[in-house]
Amino acid sequence: MTNAPVADVLAGKHPVASTVQVQGWVRTKRDSKAGLSFIALHDGSCFDPVQVVALNSLANYEDILRLTTGCSVRATGVVKQSEGAGQALEIEATNLEVVGWVENPDTYPMAAKRHSIEYLREHAHLRPRTNIIGAVTRVRNCLSQAIHRFFHEQGYCWISTPILTASDTEGAGEMFRVSTLDMMNIPTTDEGKVDYSQDFFGKETFLTVSGQLNVETYCTAMSKVYTFGPTFRAENSNTSRHLAEFWMIEPEVAFADLSTIAQLAEDLLKYVFKAVLTERADDMAFFQQRVNKDVISRMQSVVDSDFVRMDYSEAIEILQKSGKRFEFPVEWGVDLSSEHERYIAEEHVGAPVIMQNYPKDIKAFYMRINDDEKTVAAMDVLAPGIGEIIGGSQREERLDVFDRRLAEMKLSAEDYAWYRDLRKYGTVPHAGFGLGFERLVAYVTGVQNVRDVIPFPRTPGNANY
Amino acid sequence: MTNAPVADVLAGKHPVASTVQVQGWVRTKRDSKAGLSFIALHDGSCFDPVQVVALNSLANYEDILRLTTGCSVRATGVVKQSEGAGQALEIEATNLEVVGWVENPDTYPMAAKRHSIEYLREHAHLRPRTNIIGAVTRVRNCLSQAIHRFFHEQGYCWISTPILTASDTEGAGEMFRVSTLDMMNIPTTDEGKVDYSQDFFGKETFLTVSGQLNVETYCTAMSKVYTFGPTFRAENSNTSRHLAEFWMIEPEVAFADLSTIAQLAEDLLKYVFKAVLTERADDMAFFQQRVNKDVISRMQSVVDSDFVRMDYSEAIEILQKSGKRFEFPVEWGVDLSSEHERYIAEEHVGAPVIMQNYPKDIKAFYMRINDDEKTVAAMDVLAPGIGEIIGGSQREERLDVFDRRLAEMKLSAEDYAWYRDLRKYGTVPHAGFGLGFERLVAYVTGVQNVRDVIPFPRTPGNANY
Repeated sequence: MTNAPVADVLAGKHPVASTVQVQGWVRTKRDSKAGLSFIALHDGSCFDPVQVVALNSLANYEDILRLTTGCSVRATGVVKQSEGAGQALEIEATNLEVVGWVENPDTYPMAAKRHSIEYLREHAHLRPRTNIIGAVTRVRNCLSQAIHRFFHEQGYCWISTPILTASDTEGAGEMFRVSTLDMMNIPTTDEGKVDYSQDFFGKETFLTVSGQLNVETYCTAMSKVYTFGPTFRAENSNTSRHLAEFWMIEPEVAFADLSTIAQLAEDLLKYVFKAVLTERADDMAFFQQRVNKDVISRMQSVVDSDFVRMDYSEAIEILQKSGKRFEFPVEWGVDLSSEHERYIAEEHVGAPVIMQNYPKDIKAFYMRINDDEKTVAAMDVLAPGIGEIIGGSQREERLDVFDRRLAEMKLSAEDYAWYRDLRKYGTVPHAGFGLGFERLVAYVTGVQNVRDVIPFPRTPGNANY
Repeated sequence: MTNAPVADVLAGKHPVASTVQVQGWVRTKRDSKAGLSFIALHDGSCFDPVQVVALNSLANYEDILRLTTGCSVRATGVVKQSEGAGQALEIEATNLEVVGWVENPDTYPMAAKRHSIEYLREHAHLRPRTNIIGAVTRVRNCLSQAIHRFFHEQGYCWISTPILTASDTEGAGEMFRVSTLDMMNIPTTDEGKVDYSQDFFGKETFLTVSGQLNVETYCTAMSKVYTFGPTFRAENSNTSRHLAEFWMIEPEVAFADLSTIAQLAEDLLKYVFKAVLTERADDMAFFQQRVNKDVISRMQSVVDSDFVRMDYSEAIEILQKSGKRFEFPVEWGVDLSSEHERYIAEEHVGAPVIMQNYPKDIKAFYMRINDDEKTVAAMDVLAPGIGEIIGGSQREERLDVFDRRLAEMKLSAEDYAWYRDLRKYGTVPHAGFGLGFERLVAYVTGVQNVRDVIPFPRTPGNANY
């Protein structure tokens, strides 16, 4: 008897009257006075549990009466049309083996009742057993598979950019130091500084904040590449949108300008949303019912929309003429805040917006200067209901312009020697963007806090498990 | 005119006499006295470059004469049957634009000549432009896509286990410390120890050495899960098989014993090898010709073999009776070394071997004790030509046995509280294995040193780029 995933049984892959074996955990159990028990058994393969009916004629029915939420069981039985509401098929057990009991059911942390999301977070090792985290896990997996598939079908190579880097050239936020030095015995140089030459890598070394600069080296050889890996920020941010460790997707395309990657971003989001709507309808129905009633319609609306391209300068005019009072004042040159982005995407346009050509002074050194010399070829994708979900740019590929910009920003050309080489040797226009994976999962599921869409969230004061 | 990847042109996706645009980099150029130039243009989409023929009637033919290896170009032209040897199709350019020159071709580090693999490693930002690293990159991508596809098709969920962990329960080798403390001003406690309560996570924190313990929490809820992410070892190992940062694949299966995951390992390796043989025949032909002549045949032979299951105890007998003199002596209880593994797989069996049931004293605390009380349900997959490529085990799911083992090994039950919870609440037999991704890529490509199959290798003294 081979094992049948619950998803296959519920999908009718095993005909009525055939015998199957299912294995999993008791979600709930109900004992009927008529001398039979109904066990809702889940195995993680889909949202719904399968109902296993156990008659008191089973030899170990006394054991079955003692089953509680979380016990593991192996059931063999016959597939039947279900007479109960809510499911089409059930299994009438011919054998039901208890594999693992729950020690002291009264104190089982995942007992069958509503737990707050914060409580679940405190029990991160057990929370995958709940409806909500199980659903998040399947949707997260569906998104990651769809992302890899999208890029693979389009001829992109996945590149694993390094996590550890001695390159101090990012300048993008606070970094974590990685070391094997004895903290009670830090070696110092003659000048009284830390002597990192004695550290594992012979240099001060950090966790990466982005794979972009590294992946550009592969872009300028393989043409179409992307990263999908963890990145780190040592920011003391205790918000629902920040993690110290999160996953990022960063495609980079050669012979491409801003419009190429704006289209790529639109195509990618539509592709992965379609995958979730098709493949995880069960989990999405749950999120719609319990978490956010708009969660399916807003994804469907992104799939059906043409994303609107809009210049930053135009957005400033629209905001100024809106007659709205914003918390942060609007004038050309300021960075847009969430209230501005959401006004544009939700109220003014009513569809996803790709905002383009931002003032250079609020953007990074590597972005390509436009002919107006005031703006850079940067873009943000703003989605109704969340705001910025993707940020990208065309990269400055002209060595002379790049060097001028480095000087302007008081950065040293020497620190960027290898990055400059990409511009010295067969330079090409190229562009890319970054998509924070947890923000994507949060948007798709409607789950408010990114801590609940990653298995073990890392935040200030917490790296448990 | 949309861009055509070189792979599409060479595969005949654009009919003869149609006009296409290709973009990429000059690999080599040959000027004929007849007044035309032959440019081998690569764009990373496949192993072979496409030949672009430029006649001296082109307006910028003077520029074309100055093209050197590494220059980037955009060519528009007509697809033709090629008269030259080695390619079926070529492009006769109607327009050929130089996009980026190579500054001082005489000192271009990737000039068109044979470079040693060590030299390429010193220029890790430019080496993807070479034949060998381009081929490695495509094969690495093919393997990673096939791995995700294999697990997805079989209903596994990808789980991103944490990179940062304050859990000091691994005990598997040296770890990197991650901190934001001021190294010149380490805070100390009253007892004179480092006061990690002031560090970012409020505890001493490390980079993960394995996702296994974490992923078991998802296995005991979702049933079939796998990790695919970076792991770290702060070992001072300067060998061709060690990296400080490497990627691992770790599936974990509920309601599974050793035989389940032995079969899973066999199925996985066959699946991904078939994918490479089918999808990357061009790159594999290169590795066979230039790197290792057995590289295709040994993969094909793995695909065609039934993996042989063998107990450790049987292997010891075979080794003792072999009459071979081994550097390390053989007796029951010793860990097998590479010479032993390769004798068994290559000389005695001549096929991949899944070695099972090792002495418990040479294996980790979490492996399941067999009924003989002397061995554990551990396995290694030994492949001819490389030795161990996968290591795994059934995990000890019985709380009382697990606790006895912890005590035996002088480990504290308290440190493993969350791991013990998985055994307290609905425990199930479960098993999993680990596959080092870079060792897999090295085996497939025949490239000797794992530093050459990862974009930016991290080793003692080196975290450049």
